[in-house]
Amino acid sequence: MAEALVHLEVEDTVAVVTLNNPAKRGALSMDAMKGLIESFRQVAERRDVHAAVLRSEGTVFSAGHDLGEVRNADHDQLRRIFGTCAELMQLIQRIPQPVIAQVQGLATAAGCQLVATCDLAVAAETAGFATPGVRIGLFCSTPMVALTRAVDRKTAMKMLLTGEPIGAAEARAQGLVSHVVAPEELTEATMAVARRVAGFSSATVSVGKRAFYEQAELSTAEAYAHMVEVMAANALAPDAKEGIGAFLDKREPVWQHRS
Amino acid sequence: MAEALVHLEVEDTVAVVTLNNPAKRGALSMDAMKGLIESFRQVAERRDVHAAVLRSEGTVFSAGHDLGEVRNADHDQLRRIFGTCAELMQLIQRIPQPVIAQVQGLATAAGCQLVATCDLAVAAETAGFATPGVRIGLFCSTPMVALTRAVDRKTAMKMLLTGEPIGAAEARAQGLVSHVVAPEELTEATMAVARRVAGFSSATVSVGKRAFYEQAELSTAEAYAHMVEVMAANALAPDAKEGIGAFLDKREPVWQHRS
Amino acid sequence: MAEALVHLEVEDTVAVVTLNNPAKRGALSMDAMKGLIESFRQVAERRDVHAAVLRSEGTVFSAGHDLGEVRNADHDQLRRIFGTCAELMQLIQRIPQPVIAQVQGLATAAGCQLVATCDLAVAAETAGFATPGVRIGLFCSTPMVALTRAVDRKTAMKMLLTGEPIGAAEARAQGLVSHVVAPEELTEATMAVARRVAGFSSATVSVGKRAFYEQAELSTAEAYAHMVEVMAANALAPDAKEGIGAFLDKREPVWQHRS
Repeated sequence: MAEALVHLEVEDTVAVVTLNNPAKRGALSMDAMKGLIESFRQVAERRDVHAAVLRSEGTVFSAGHDLGEVRNADHDQLRRIFGTCAELMQLIQRIPQPVIAQVQGLATAAGCQLVATCDLAVAAETAGFATPGVRIGLFCSTPMVALTRAVDRKTAMKMLLTGEPIGAAEARAQGLVSHVVAPEELTEATMAVARRVAGFSSATVSVGKRAFYEQAELSTAEAYAHMVEVMAANALAPDAKEGIGAFLDKREPVWQHRS
Repeated sequence: MAEALVHLEVEDTVAVVTLNNPAKRGALSMDAMKGLIESFRQVAERRDVHAAVLRSEGTVFSAGHDLGEVRNADHDQLRRIFGTCAELMQLIQRIPQPVIAQVQGLATAAGCQLVATCDLAVAAETAGFATPGVRIGLFCSTPMVALTRAVDRKTAMKMLLTGEPIGAAEARAQGLVSHVVAPEELTEATMAVARRVAGFSSATVSVGKRAFYEQAELSTAEAYAHMVEVMAANALAPDAKEGIGAFLDKREPVWQHRS
Repeated sequence: MAEALVHLEVEDTVAVVTLNNPAKRGALSMDAMKGLIESFRQVAERRDVHAAVLRSEGTVFSAGHDLGEVRNADHDQLRRIFGTCAELMQLIQRIPQPVIAQVQGLATAAGCQLVATCDLAVAAETAGFATPGVRIGLFCSTPMVALTRAVDRKTAMKMLLTGEPIGAAEARAQGLVSHVVAPEELTEATMAVARRVAGFSSATVSVGKRAFYEQAELSTAEAYAHMVEVMAANALAPDAKEGIGAFLDKREPVWQHRS
């Protein structure tokens, strides 16, 4: 039941997507991944949602794939499992709204990949991060796509080759998460970041998020050529006109947001 | 008057380029950007200049584009504004001499981009860095080309999506600046770095700076193939012959510099 | 005598490759580089070796190229010297086993490149790292291929343009090394990391190491497409079957390793 494994709630303009699989330590079973994909597709369609939080029930954020499923899968099924995982990760970066991971505990393997993938990640000081597939003979090869684009190579290799967890402070220092807070402040701190982002023009934010991932894979010269066009178009959009005018006139802007 | 907005002075072999727009918080108006481009072109032509410092008058390093100009610009003018900005940034990385930003205060939007772009950046402990365009509906899309090539993705996204500043210590930890010093030591510390670099062979430094940005965009195998040729040619140049000889003979080298 | 300059010993499943050139501060002469290449080729062929440590005799890890050789070389010889160096570095990343640098002292120029190149690097707190070629007129252009893929650009430029060393703590913070330990614990800590990695399935580790460097140079979409196939194949291999089964059955796995 994908419905039971993933909840989508909307608080004002912030969607909260909850992975509800605490008995399996937040396992990303096929149903859980499909539920997340369905939720993020719904988020993408909703003009009234300006940011999304991804959280998890229980003490563990996510322990990654459901190993019972992996053990029993044939080659086609394995390609579907890892392909669905890759689809989920790329979807998170492709939807118009920023996605903010709220990490209360251990995030391992594909769970760590989720954190590396989200646009922002707020971690409790007590959270931990690992890519321990090597310990069970299954190297974290899809997780490392996200991991190596988030942190430096030596940190990535340390995690991948030893399977040992790093803490929240090291995760922040090396780029795996964007914020670290006390455990008791995690929910409120994450929602504060989400509400701040959601308070900006969703039209502007969606342009910026898409441009971010586009330019990241171009040469510097290509990136500048593309971003000059993106920024000139952005500056003529209603919310930039409003925002610049409000700033110069020292008043609060009133956004039209995504249409 | 581009002349008034940007000063170029040469102290021994170090050029000091000063953005002189304190009343507008170091705004990068078209005239200011053209003045900077003109100054860096002059620097590039001067064989007697071995390093350049980029500093700014006033308490703010640079608040980025002149929003009055952006507000009133049509599409062609916007493309010229952001195109001139992109030209300035790429010029800084293309001139033969290293460019060192001296950051005394806030560097925001295209001002933060300038810091990210310079080869080195010395910041006062009290400096701050932000890409706050999202707050006025104009995402910092050209600044993020430089920002994402300087810092990790989560730090970049935190700055771009929240618009909040980071301090000098975080800027150093994540790679946005190369040095952090006490505010009262900023000028002398920056000049000390500049004089150190300027004391090396300008021929060698120019080969290295160009090679740095070339290899950064190649695959590892391509980068090695290219750098083997660069380094073999470098080793036969007069200043390498002199430098290696002086080192082995335990004497001070006498450089010929760029010819 | 390449034999004298480089030792290869195997302790259980860990190869220890020793650069034995203390009188020349660990200089990477042509003979030393050929000795290292020969040793790593032997390591690659040995199915009973699951990890390798690269260490150096003396107080200096490696001072880089033998400048006496460089001084007297013509263009063809220089291309061979730097080409052999590039071959060594790429070989270290291409052999199936992880290579762990054990850095007891200064690692400069091509010596720093070795550290940047190894999959992991354990440094003594008293170690130092520099790319000082600029001081002798010979910019560290081949070292920067490895350096810029390990650390952020401002740190790389600070090292390349000033020639000044950074310490072990900064090297860890910026990604040049993976671990920092007290000097008296260096050998044992490095061997502990090596033995940990060597205790995993060498079949799995070799798949993961190769995939790591492959995906690092692809776009995100290409990387995911490739890693989905890698991981599906990995999951069907005997050691993944064994590892997942052992984990689910709460017993210790028994690996077949590379065949």
